[in-house]
Formats: sequence, C-alpha cells, structure tokens
Amino acid sequence: MPILGHTQYGKAEVRVVRIHRDTDPHVISDHNVSVALSGDYADTHLTGDNTRVLTTDAVKNTINAFAKEAGDAARTPEAFGLALARHFTGVPQVSRVRVGIETFPWRRLEHAGAPHPHAFARDGGHVRTTTVTRAGDGAEWVTSGVAGLVVLKTTDSEFHSFYTDRYTTLAETTNRVMATEVTAQWWHAEHPADWDTAHATAITAMTSAFAGHHSLALQQTLYEMGTQVLATGPGIGEIRFSLPNKHHFLVDLAPFGLKNPGEVFHADDRPYGLIEGTVRRDDAPAPGPAFDPGQAW
Amino acid sequence: MPILGHTQYGKAEVRVVRIHRDTDPHVISDHNVSVALSGDYADTHLTGDNTRVLTTDAVKNTINAFAKEAGDAARTPEAFGLALARHFTGVPQVSRVRVGIETFPWRRLEHAGAPHPHAFARDGGHVRTTTVTRAGDGAEWVTSGVAGLVVLKTTDSEFHSFYTDRYTTLAETTNRVMATEVTAQWWHAEHPADWDTAHATAITAMTSAFAGHHSLALQQTLYEMGTQVLATGPGIGEIRFSLPNKHHFLVDLAPFGLKNPGEVFHADDRPYGLIEGTVRRDDAPAPGPAFDPGQAW
Amino acid sequence: MPILGHTQYGKAEVRVVRIHRDTDPHVISDHNVSVALSGDYADTHLTGDNTRVLTTDAVKNTINAFAKEAGDAARTPEAFGLALARHFTGVPQVSRVRVGIETFPWRRLEHAGAPHPHAFARDGGHVRTTTVTRAGDGAEWVTSGVAGLVVLKTTDSEFHSFYTDRYTTLAETTNRVMATEVTAQWWHAEHPADWDTAHATAITAMTSAFAGHHSLALQQTLYEMGTQVLATGPGIGEIRFSLPNKHHFLVDLAPFGLKNPGEVFHADDRPYGLIEGTVRRDDAPAPGPAFDPGQAW
Amino acid sequence: MPILGHTQYGKAEVRVVRIHRDTDPHVISDHNVSVALSGDYADTHLTGDNTRVLTTDAVKNTINAFAKEAGDAARTPEAFGLALARHFTGVPQVSRVRVGIETFPWRRLEHAGAPHPHAFARDGGHVRTTTVTRAGDGAEWVTSGVAGLVVLKTTDSEFHSFYTDRYTTLAETTNRVMATEVTAQWWHAEHPADWDTAHATAITAMTSAFAGHHSLALQQTLYEMGTQVLATGPGIGEIRFSLPNKHHFLVDLAPFGLKNPGEVFHADDRPYGLIEGTVRRDDAPAPGPAFDPGQAW
Repeated sequence: MPILGHTQYGKAEVRVVRIHRDTDPHVISDHNVSVALSGDYADTHLTGDNTRVLTTDAVKNTINAFAKEAGDAARTPEAFGLALARHFTGVPQVSRVRVGIETFPWRRLEHAGAPHPHAFARDGGHVRTTTVTRAGDGAEWVTSGVAGLVVLKTTDSEFHSFYTDRYTTLAETTNRVMATEVTAQWWHAEHPADWDTAHATAITAMTSAFAGHHSLALQQTLYEMGTQVLATGPGIGEIRFSLPNKHHFLVDLAPFGLKNPGEVFHADDRPYGLIEGTVRRDDAPAPGPAFDPGQAW
Repeated sequence: MPILGHTQYGKAEVRVVRIHRDTDPHVISDHNVSVALSGDYADTHLTGDNTRVLTTDAVKNTINAFAKEAGDAARTPEAFGLALARHFTGVPQVSRVRVGIETFPWRRLEHAGAPHPHAFARDGGHVRTTTVTRAGDGAEWVTSGVAGLVVLKTTDSEFHSFYTDRYTTLAETTNRVMATEVTAQWWHAEHPADWDTAHATAITAMTSAFAGHHSLALQQTLYEMGTQVLATGPGIGEIRFSLPNKHHFLVDLAPFGLKNPGEVFHADDRPYGLIEGTVRRDDAPAPGPAFDPGQAW
Repeated sequence: MPILGHTQYGKAEVRVVRIHRDTDPHVISDHNVSVALSGDYADTHLTGDNTRVLTTDAVKNTINAFAKEAGDAARTPEAFGLALARHFTGVPQVSRVRVGIETFPWRRLEHAGAPHPHAFARDGGHVRTTTVTRAGDGAEWVTSGVAGLVVLKTTDSEFHSFYTDRYTTLAETTNRVMATEVTAQWWHAEHPADWDTAHATAITAMTSAFAGHHSLALQQTLYEMGTQVLATGPGIGEIRFSLPNKHHFLVDLAPFGLKNPGEVFHADDRPYGLIEGTVRRDDAPAPGPAFDPGQAW
Repeated sequence: MPILGHTQYGKAEVRVVRIHRDTDPHVISDHNVSVALSGDYADTHLTGDNTRVLTTDAVKNTINAFAKEAGDAARTPEAFGLALARHFTGVPQVSRVRVGIETFPWRRLEHAGAPHPHAFARDGGHVRTTTVTRAGDGAEWVTSGVAGLVVLKTTDSEFHSFYTDRYTTLAETTNRVMATEVTAQWWHAEHPADWDTAHATAITAMTSAFAGHHSLALQQTLYEMGTQVLATGPGIGEIRFSLPNKHHFLVDLAPFGLKNPGEVFHADDRPYGLIEGTVRRDDAPAPGPAFDPGQAW
C-alpha cells in the first residue's frame, strides 16, 4: 500500500524589491524569497481536499505585503525572514516554516564626484543568502551565507604528498594557482545586534583568511576560513562550506619553444574538485534543522 | 574552540561518453558523473597533511578507466554507479561513497527510411538521474530518477475550496492549464533485473498518471504519480517529487474587446508554486541515506 | 557633435501559449515572441518626446491579442509572425518591423495505450525559430530555423591533411566522433503551402544528411546539410549554419594499462571550434534583410 | 544548383588566464577569446580538402602562446586582440580576422588592513568586451564594450504622453523605477594611449549620465549616455547600446489595506522592453565592419 511521507509546499522565487524612500539617500533591498510550509496536508494529497491549504498565491501576496508591513525588518534578509516565518507559523495547520532568501547587493553610483542618492549598480561579486527555519513551538534557526563569491590566489598554494593508487597520475606541486567559488552558510547560535554588520564581518574574515593563508590543500584553506569566521564572535555556532576547486591548468607551451613559469593557464569548466566541510564551535549546541532544507535532495 | 564537523570531497561533473562499438548498431552511454567520498580526513583539514587523500584527479581517472574496465556495467548509470562505489569503498580511509550521475538520452537518427546505426540526436526531453550510496560495511542504496521532464495538460485540472486568509486573492477555478517540470527520485528497495526497462517503466507510469488523472490540486497529482510508480512492481520502496507549478496565467483580453475562453496564456517564469512530497510503500524498510546528499544543503 | 544613428525598439520574449480547444485532440502553440520596430524615433531619443512611440507594453498586448485574433495563423510561427508584422507596419511611424519567434515543440503523452487528447510533454530536442521582417513598402522576408539540435555520429568522420604552422600540434585522424549543436536559419524565397510540413522536411533533410554523409571536415558536412535542405524544393533560397564542434576527446587510458580503441571520450565544454557558413541556390535573389537582425551585434 | 556563400570559422571561448608575476603586486588578465577567420575555404566545404585549413586547435594554441609571446600586449584585451589579429591575417589564405574577447575584472582582496599582493575576488559587476577586426590589407577596427552592467534609479524617471492605439492600456507615470542591464560597444576611430584608462573613463561617463539624467524615456537616457561617452575625447567615433528595460512593477497592496507609494516592486523577468540605438560623432568616418560579426545572425 502506498502511504504519504514527508511533504512541504510553498511559493519559490518571489522577486520583491523594496525601495526605502524615507531615508536620504534612498536604500534598496532586493530579495528573491522562497517559503516552504510543512504540516498535515494529507487531505490535499489523498483526496484533493484543499480546505486546509493556504494557496501559494497567498504566500506570494504575504511576502509582498510584508515588504511594506514589516517596516525596518525588510531591510535585512534575516529580519525579513524572521518576520515572515513568525507569520506563517501562525497559520493554523502549519507545523514548520522554512524561508530562503537570496539578496542582491547594490552599490551607489558616482555622479559629479560624489555618491548619488538614488542611482545604483548591481554589485555582482556575490549573492547574500539567508535561511530562517521556525517550528510550530516557536523555536527558530537563522543562517546567513554567501554564494557566487569567486576568489583566486596566484601563489601560496601547494599540493603534494598525497595518497596514490593505480589511477593516480597527478604531478605534485609546491606552487599553484588556487581558485574557488565560495558557497557558505553559517548558523547563528545567538542573533547579532546588527545583521548587516555581522554579514560583512563574516565575509571579510573568510576572504582575509583565504588571502593570508599559506595553503597545503583546499581542505586546509576551508578549515582556516571557517575558523576565522567563528573567531569573529561567539554567536556563530557552525559554518558549512561547499568549495569547488576551479582548476587553472598550466598550459604546455614547450611545443612552441616557449617557457611557462606559472604565467599562462587554462581556466577549465568541468570536471572540478568539490570540497565540502563543516567547522563548528566545540561548545555550540546542535544546529537542529538549521541546515536541513526539508524535502529537497 | 573550532572543531571539524562532517566533510566530504571528490570530483564533480566528469563528462564521460562511452561508445559501445562491439554492438551493431552502436550504442552511446553519455554520463555526467560526480563522486563524493567521506571518511576520516581531519589531517588534511587541520594540518594540510594529504597522506590519506586520494586526489580528485585520480577520482576522475578512475571514472574514465571504469567506463572501459567496468564493461557492460557502463551501459546503465545504476550499474556504473555501483561499480564505482564498490571500488571507492575499497580505498582504505573511505567510509562512505556517494556517486551521482546525470545521463543524457540519445535517439537514433533516421536515414534513407531507417534508423541509422551510428548517428544520433540528443533527446532533450529529460535527463535520467542516478545516485548510489555505499557504506564501508557494504550496505548499498540505489535511486533512479528524472529531471527536466516538462509536462502540461490543457484541462482536467481544478483548484478551489482552499483555505483563505487576509492575503488570499486567488480566484477559484474548475478548469485550468496545469504544467510542471518533474524532478523525481525513487529508491530501489530491491534491484530490478534490467535497469533500463525499470527506468522506462517508471517514467511511463508517472506520465500516464499525469495524463489520465483528474486533478483537484497538484499535490493530489503528485500522490497519484507516486502511487502509479510504486505500482509498477514491489522493488521501489519510496519516491520523492519536486514539482514546480509552472503557472500559465489566462491573459485578460477584455480591454481589446476579445473573449478568452481558456485559449491565450502567459507562461510565467517566477515566482512559482513548489510542491514537494514523498510516497512510500507501507511495508518498505527505511531508506537510510538513499536520499541524503551528505554535506550539501 | 553627437548624432543619432540607427535605432530599434520593442518588446522581447513575450511567452504566449495558445491552446486550440476547438480541435479534438487539443493542440498547443508555445511561442516566445520578440518584436523590434524601426522608424523615425529621433524625438524620444533627443528630447524625451514620446508622442510617436507605441509603448512596448502595447506591443506585448498586441502579441497576446493576436494569439486570439489571428485565428489559425497563430498555429505556426511563420504565419503568426507575418500577421504581427503586417499589423505593426500599419502603425504610422514604423518603417520596418522584425518579429523573432522561438517555438517550443510538445509531444502528446501516452495513456492507456493511446496518445492522450490533452496531455503533453515538452520535446526538448530542439527549438524551432522564425523571423519575419517587413518593410514599410510591404516587402516581406521569412526565415525558418532551428536551435539546440544536438547530433553526434560515432564514426564516418575523418580530419587530416590540414595546413600546419608552428602552432599546430593536432594529430590527424581517420575516425573520430563528430558532434555539433545545430543552429540554422533558412530563407523562404517563396512561401510554402504548409509551414509545419516544410519545417519538418527541412529538419529531416539536414539530420539525414548528417547521418549519411562520410565527413572529411565539419565544413564539408555543413555544405552537405545545406545542399540537402535546398534540395527539398525550390522555395528555400539560402540557409545559414552555425555549427560548434562539440569536441569529444579520446581519453588516454594507457597509464592504467588499458587500451581505448575509440570507446571512452571526454565531452569538453570550452573551447570549441565554430564553423559558420551559407549555402544558397545559384538562381535565388538576394536575401535582403532576411538575416539582418538590425541593431544587435 | 547550390553554391557556397559567406563562411567563417575558428575557435571560440578559449579561457586563458595570464598571471603577471614580474610585477609586485601580481596582476591577472582573465580572458575568454574567440577568433573567426574568413577567406577562400571553398575546398574544405565542397570536397573536404583541408590543405588550406589552419586547424581550430592551432588557433587555440596560438591564443595560449600569445598570452606569453605578446608580452605586455596581453594585459589589455584591445592590445591582445590586435596582436592576435595581426598574426592571423599573416596566415596565407586568411582575408579577414575577427577577434572577440570577454575580459573578467578582478579586485584585490584585503588582508591585515591592506590590499593583498596576490589574492583576488572576481568583480562580478560587469564583463569588459572587445572586438578587433582586421582585413587582409591591414585595415583595423577596434571596439571596446561592456556587458552585464545592471543599473537602477529609484526616481528621476518619467514615462507618459506616448502614442496610443486600441492595444494600449499602460498608465502614464511621472515617477518610476528605471533599471537596465547595459550592453554597449564603442568604436575607436583613433586608438587611445591607454586602453584601461579609456575603458574606465567610458564606463564612468555612461554610469554618471545614467545617474544624473532626468529621464522621460529610456531612449532619451540611451542618447544621453552615448553623448557623454563620446564627450570623453575625440577618439570614439560611435557607440551602440542594447538596453533591456528591466521592469519593476509596483505591487498592488490595496487588497491588503496597505498603501504602496513607490516602495514595493515586483522585479519581472520576461517580457521586457528592449531599446537599441546608436550615437555617433557627426564628423566620424563610417565604422566599416567594426560592429559586423560576420556570419552570425
């Protein structure tokens, strides 16, 4: 007999832009919001009875309305996500809410030698990510994160003395180009006073670690980056990284009578090494469902 | 104090194409293979000691070599993934392997009124997906799946009688266009004799269910699709779906003096409803880590 | 002094889906329509005077309305494009219209052993493309085309005896895998009676030529494909191809003690050879602006 | 009879990264290079005779070798493209070369309160584009450009008093959000002394114009942006823009009892207005093939 297992549903990728005009200069909050609701929805699955189903259209409407109603909370994705999660756990049949937000940074354009009060360019260097998970009993988990942050160092990276088997042909190196596109998410065991400052501080910690660390393996760099983010304060309980090794292969120029002392590289697309790892504070509580997306796999 | 949590690493997206020339006509197996290894890799993270690290380059080499060495196993992604997983759990320090494969179907071209023995066109209708998870103790979990399968029905879909709150504005409908892009993964509690036939049978079951079912909610359609896949035989223990509701909005043509009785629609991009759910056999064992990607979140 | 040069404007990527319910079974026309208008629009550029500017919102509305008003013309992209172009050249200040359409094919799903009358799966094997260009004097040019058609042959392809210089290192081969993703556009010097049949015939001609031709260079295959499309009838005056050489590199398995007689390949992403060429009928008139997108470059 | 028309061929998307280590700090040049060659290649198309065909593999090798051999010329895409174009027009049968380059900017990471000498983050705010066209007789055309530059202003944009027809329903506005993703290419009638400075100056001119201009139409903003780029010096003969109107639609919050005085917007994906236009210096010579990509359409 078939039976229904875990389910969740909601509206994904609501692209809501909030302009704060009551400030001078203007401020933009540019979010891509997804909400997933869990609860007892067996009726709609088994019989098509939608009596207890809040429509995903209403979820979208709520996100848009909260961009206005939530006031200052809409300025940071973490506060916006908390406001939304607290609303949706108030819907009768909802036992768990997960809010995921991608936030797109903007920088102010220059005009006549000064930052312009209401003109912007999108800062494509990274996307800020946020998740808020809230249980029906009021427990809350917030993670902040980053995606699309591409970093590269031209030296201070070695890779050698590794395990070998019959399929190993890689040459050892004491000086390579190392590059990755950082995806990271960190869980706030305690909530900071200022989400924006906390986020900027974490990004600075991880990029500074990447720059300053002499690397023997991307795994080691990952751990160092995580350690430095945890060191920014006691609030962050755990950080998880997904670091693709964006390979830069030295081009063999010998057939053309040329030397290539670490100067000309082919930036390859696929395949790529993929290093994933967690760094946590030894005294942090368990992160619960903070990193658990629910159904998706 | 920072401590290391869960880690995994490997090579992602090895694009290996295997031509089987010992058959007439030729056969193509076109795979995008990712392998993730777990185990005790604290040394490389903490000190950069790579003594126990099999390089991701060797992982790539192994995948390529097995496309030859594994013989007939390379013809189906499930068998190929099993061969790879069994190899990698034999690497000393590896305690768990996960192999993920995207397989791209090809159809034979016609020439001179007959299928051509060695010319093909890519069948872009879906991607076949596979995961194999293997523990150090030899336990194995195989899932098969599909991604990118876009289906649409022009009628036989209703949506009404739903819960309403102050943010609900959606009109009820007894006849709408319903479309989704199916991502699904099902776990084989028992392994079928023929992976290709089993996959084709599952796809037929879910698309036939989509076509024939009179839908009161996409959630109900999901459950019906899952039920029909489980009904194809006793081997499938559980199936999980992620179904974005690809909204087709009726265009208001009244301002131009035109009626629009379900004829002209705007196919919208974002946002979209996202319905996710699991259907399982009541007598199936627990799926263990079959659906668990490990680190990624 | 700055002066205004060529301009064009319009609405791009209107995703209009037309369901034809007056037939049994139902039929879907799924189009992505872009319209670009040229004319004397100096006022809006120089002074912001929009008196003569039809809004791009109205362009969108017109496309949607014509999906209903144009009746049977909405069923094929060429006829739909002609209907739209004839309308827009009637807008007073418009001197040239270009309509570009991407059309997404659907195939009927099977249910209970028969094609279902109103359930479909998207056929992802290619996108059908169309352009209609119309001048203010009523001259019209229609092209049909294809994009995303990936084809591969496992043998019957050689490449050798090429020009060499000091940067040439490529080995000659008498048997390689050849694959490409066809983008092609052909101009109808005369309009066929049935656009759908004409399109299917052209696709069959080019894929059959790809399958059956023994190739000494992708350039030669291009010419053969073009020749066979022209041979389908006197109406097609010219065809243009853009054929990326989707390289499949033989993997060197010798380090692992394995032979690789044309069996295991790496499907590479970038870079790729790009072969572009035109085949035309020697008695065809000049194609005029049929292939000229106007401003874009 | 079929005959061969215009052809071109080459290697596309060679991802070459050049590290300049002879400077302190290190400098990265990160290019995606495509080369297309035109000439008399009828033999390869008609008979598969490749005697006069330089392989696209050799084109790739040449690009990589020139990243070393060209010395300082590899530091700016315009100089790199010129070096490549001059080489390829020296290949006997080549009558025209077109080099297209995408260049990815990097910014230096901070570490210990100072810019780091060899660690970088990709600056995702835009891609710098370059084309060099060279004829067999030595005539050269260089364009510089930008892609992916997303800009937005929260006010100072009106749109009203436009032409109306029976399909016009758009409301007039005297205050809207205006956003676009700038693609632009400008032709250097004379070559500047410093390509990097010239590029930065052009970007600053167009973004400052976007910020400071009170807009009555995106067309007017386009003309103003072009005018300001031309005003940066006498060398730029012509600039072409492709400006999608990235619509931000005011969300109707009235059903929820909320006002929305220009605060909450839906950032829509498709369709979008597309405004394209050319601004040129009245005394500039004709741009010849500077903007002509050849075969592509």
